[in-house]
Amino acid sequence: MNYYPEPIRRLIRSFSKLPGIGEKTAERLTMHVLKAPRAEAEHLARHLIDMKEKIRLCSVCFGLSEGEICALCGDPGRDHTLICVVEQPADMIAIEKSGAYRGVYHILQGALSPIDGIGPDNLRIAELLQRIRTQQVAEIILATSTSVEGESTAAYLKEILQGASIQITRIASGVPMGGDLKYVDQVTLKRAMDSRHAI
Amino acid sequence: MNYYPEPIRRLIRSFSKLPGIGEKTAERLTMHVLKAPRAEAEHLARHLIDMKEKIRLCSVCFGLSEGEICALCGDPGRDHTLICVVEQPADMIAIEKSGAYRGVYHILQGALSPIDGIGPDNLRIAELLQRIRTQQVAEIILATSTSVEGESTAAYLKEILQGASIQITRIASGVPMGGDLKYVDQVTLKRAMDSRHAI
Repeated sequence: MNYYPEPIRRLIRSFSKLPGIGEKTAERLTMHVLKAPRAEAEHLARHLIDMKEKIRLCSVCFGLSEGEICALCGDPGRDHTLICVVEQPADMIAIEKSGAYRGVYHILQGALSPIDGIGPDNLRIAELLQRIRTQQVAEIILATSTSVEGESTAAYLKEILQGASIQITRIASGVPMGGDLKYVDQVTLKRAMDSRHAI
Repeated sequence: MNYYPEPIRRLIRSFSKLPGIGEKTAERLTMHVLKAPRAEAEHLARHLIDMKEKIRLCSVCFGLSEGEICALCGDPGRDHTLICVVEQPADMIAIEKSGAYRGVYHILQGALSPIDGIGPDNLRIAELLQRIRTQQVAEIILATSTSVEGESTAAYLKEILQGASIQITRIASGVPMGGDLKYVDQVTLKRAMDSRHAI
């Protein structure tokens, strides 16, 4: 590191702050930028700043959005009576990639975790209830993760939503497709066994 | 990719242009920047631009430098009568890291490669000859790589430097330290055998 002039050292340090980028890789990336056309470095720099400036949370679903309302919430082609509740924007992207869903989302921005001091008020739960009150909702799909926090968040939501005349569902859990039974953990196998259904 | 708003997609694309960063990793880096404090993105952006603006080649050795003359060429503690000739700045850094050398460098900015149209005029060879003429030089160490191009560059330099009353040396090549003989390629083994010396 000390063999480089200061501006190079600074860029190496900045790159090493990214996840999964060690000092060796940061050095390699820096050397690439050094040789690459100036425009490439400028684009990366501008896109970094642009993204931080332009991306905000959709005021309806709290997903990532460029405007006040995200592309998905503004899409009349989606079924707006169907709300899929997830923890993080990345979860929504994962479901979108599966292509299995045509409704809209509600991103809680986390899961209940008393140990980390995250209670119902720290999540976008009040906003979910507000959505249910003000728009036509037929079904709420609880797609929080299957971790302890995700499960208890789903249980909590089921509890407080029970009064409303809305169907509440939970995504299925069990053995992953293409999964070899002998590599599946015991908790998952127990769940798969308990949730067995007639075919 | 298409599930993200445009500013996120642009940053993912910019990150994927870096060497060794695929789309999955670029997505992960982008999500990290999205969650990280704004200052982190701003630092990375500024350091990218800064490095491209501030780094130039030292007017003496053609190594990476922040000023007109690099830190090493301006260091009175180094032996300026000893010049180590390398192909690239990275080669110089590698030798510096070894801590085995106290002289100065001359970075050719490449190696002779007729196939790629790189002849003596495309390298900093005239500048090397100029250095030899204008400053006290006792020894030139040819430390170009051991590839075909590096070897022929060393041979060419030996040829044109022969007239001057300077000692011309070539770095040793042979079996790498800690190397297992059975994994060493045949060309290296032949060289190691030919260059054997009494102990």
